[in-house]
Amino acid sequence: MSRIYNFSAGPSVLPEPVLLQARDELLEWRNSGMSVLEMSHRGRHFSIIAEELESDLRGLLGIPKNYKVLFLQGGATAQFSFIPQNILHDKTRACYVNTGAWSEKAIKEAHNYCEVVISASSENTKFTRIPEVSSWVLDSEAAYLHYTANETIHGVEFPEVPSSNGLTLVSDMSSNILSRSCDVSAHGLIYAGTQKNMGPAGVTVVIVREDLVGKANNTIPPVFDYAEQAKNNSLLNTPPTYNWYLVGLVLKWLIEQGGIEAIERHNITKSKLLYQAIDQSTLYHNPVDISCRSRMNIPFILADETLDKPFLAAAEANGLCELKGHRSVGGMRASIYNAMPEAGVLALIDFMAEFERTH
Amino acid sequence: MSRIYNFSAGPSVLPEPVLLQARDELLEWRNSGMSVLEMSHRGRHFSIIAEELESDLRGLLGIPKNYKVLFLQGGATAQFSFIPQNILHDKTRACYVNTGAWSEKAIKEAHNYCEVVISASSENTKFTRIPEVSSWVLDSEAAYLHYTANETIHGVEFPEVPSSNGLTLVSDMSSNILSRSCDVSAHGLIYAGTQKNMGPAGVTVVIVREDLVGKANNTIPPVFDYAEQAKNNSLLNTPPTYNWYLVGLVLKWLIEQGGIEAIERHNITKSKLLYQAIDQSTLYHNPVDISCRSRMNIPFILADETLDKPFLAAAEANGLCELKGHRSVGGMRASIYNAMPEAGVLALIDFMAEFERTH
Repeated sequence: MSRIYNFSAGPSVLPEPVLLQARDELLEWRNSGMSVLEMSHRGRHFSIIAEELESDLRGLLGIPKNYKVLFLQGGATAQFSFIPQNILHDKTRACYVNTGAWSEKAIKEAHNYCEVVISASSENTKFTRIPEVSSWVLDSEAAYLHYTANETIHGVEFPEVPSSNGLTLVSDMSSNILSRSCDVSAHGLIYAGTQKNMGPAGVTVVIVREDLVGKANNTIPPVFDYAEQAKNNSLLNTPPTYNWYLVGLVLKWLIEQGGIEAIERHNITKSKLLYQAIDQSTLYHNPVDISCRSRMNIPFILADETLDKPFLAAAEANGLCELKGHRSVGGMRASIYNAMPEAGVLALIDFMAEFERTH
Repeated sequence: MSRIYNFSAGPSVLPEPVLLQARDELLEWRNSGMSVLEMSHRGRHFSIIAEELESDLRGLLGIPKNYKVLFLQGGATAQFSFIPQNILHDKTRACYVNTGAWSEKAIKEAHNYCEVVISASSENTKFTRIPEVSSWVLDSEAAYLHYTANETIHGVEFPEVPSSNGLTLVSDMSSNILSRSCDVSAHGLIYAGTQKNMGPAGVTVVIVREDLVGKANNTIPPVFDYAEQAKNNSLLNTPPTYNWYLVGLVLKWLIEQGGIEAIERHNITKSKLLYQAIDQSTLYHNPVDISCRSRMNIPFILADETLDKPFLAAAEANGLCELKGHRSVGGMRASIYNAMPEAGVLALIDFMAEFERTH
């Protein structure tokens, strides 16, 4: 067996100790006589897993007591529809900031439920910068203000939580949750798919302030009604039990690494190294404004695009995989989430230098 | 390690060869250098898994070409809402047969989207029989007729596909799919959670005839719109990739067992043995009419309910677990899905006889 460096934007690399533990426990979990895969979600074994999952996440993110933590299905994409259905309440408008492909998707679906106010957009700069917060149009009658904390395709990340001028702040943190410190209490709602920094695909975390819960529209399916799931500890119906368990293992690994502060330092180091290598080269280029470059997803284009294919082939031959950029922006993209070791980033940098030297 | 016999109603026992293969492949799948847990859902490795999953399911169930096979999230419970939203089209009524707790849940949610015609109900017999099909009220203007093929709580199973008199037949087969032969073409739509006979929790299979797809209501989230997911091979957004893989392993195990015919014989044998043991005893009793007893979930009550606790404790001490009946019906329940070996059923029967002898 030889494990490669996997730069996939998600699902993505997992910490090897997590994989090893999952393997060792696959047939039997803690003398239970069964695999986690086989456990009733209402049984005493799984209760332990579920409780530890929530308390570890609360500890890592410092989630205040007046926030519910929900573990749902459907992905962040499903939340594009279920957020307005849950928290518009009697309002008819919501504000959205458009900073890239994922903001656009959220906006498109919100249109089905309310009038969307585009508070700001960086479309005219091809999503390479975040519009100055002071210039945002904030509608005081809007139910909330939505932003995408990190754009995986465009490689743009908010350097800090934006000021919302009193509006309830909602954030899609699918691709940077748990990678940096984050003031949960500045938000009304944070949501994230797990398949980047938290585990495998299949779980959607929703962290929502209690006062926003309980006034969903009438036709929302109960399994996506925050109030119903909160009342039932996200067990209104059978959850993806094994995925919860794996997310739990990733959280315990994060705690062992020293928690968010430690992993953030690690992520700063890794991303600085790679941006430095890109900026110092004449072959590679990252178009994103330095103030909002993503620590998670680093796109770069080659000065000569006929080199794209040879670059990808040679990278793969060197065990550096899934580097192809999204078709909408072309070029390359290195996703370096929490679980990507510094050694992987250094191997990529070495390879890039060698490729530049020989091409 | 000692694995117990797990009679959980779901999530439930999985075939040991599947667990062993999952364990062996956990760190790396087929020389890919990565775990299935880490694979991009758009990558070439996962494409193989996804294609085999669909073609194996089509082969096992004999799904005709004019049916779409979708792999969704949210559980069968989410489909209680999304089925009417997808296939009511311009109709305003739907027929439902009420044969137990799961029918009731489906009916309750359907009320949010249409007028529900209760075609038949066995509530007055405490769900111990299925009303004669000839007595069902079938509204020719209804969009479809819904039935629950197997009721896990009440232990009632349709012995054959009911005649629908031309109405589009919709079936919740969550707890008996792949356990017996089934004429897919008699249905417009079949849906099932995977956590009983198909794998771990986290995937919802929807098998739907093409002509029903493409006229969902406007406000359905795209990830639950059958047309959107069919166009995208269920990859409109990131699916629970590892769960797809595990369902795929279970399907391959089923094929190795000889497919549906072989597993059905196996299920007939196991359930006959257990019903025989119950019927011959004076301590145990199953209240369900012999014509519609479930092969999957076998509830039984003890003549003296003060023996319930000692029974469960002694069973567990003998490695026979998760036998407690649902709180709504009390007593015991043995769920004996495909993956429960005959040895498990025989061990339960032996234990029951011994317990009866000594109490």
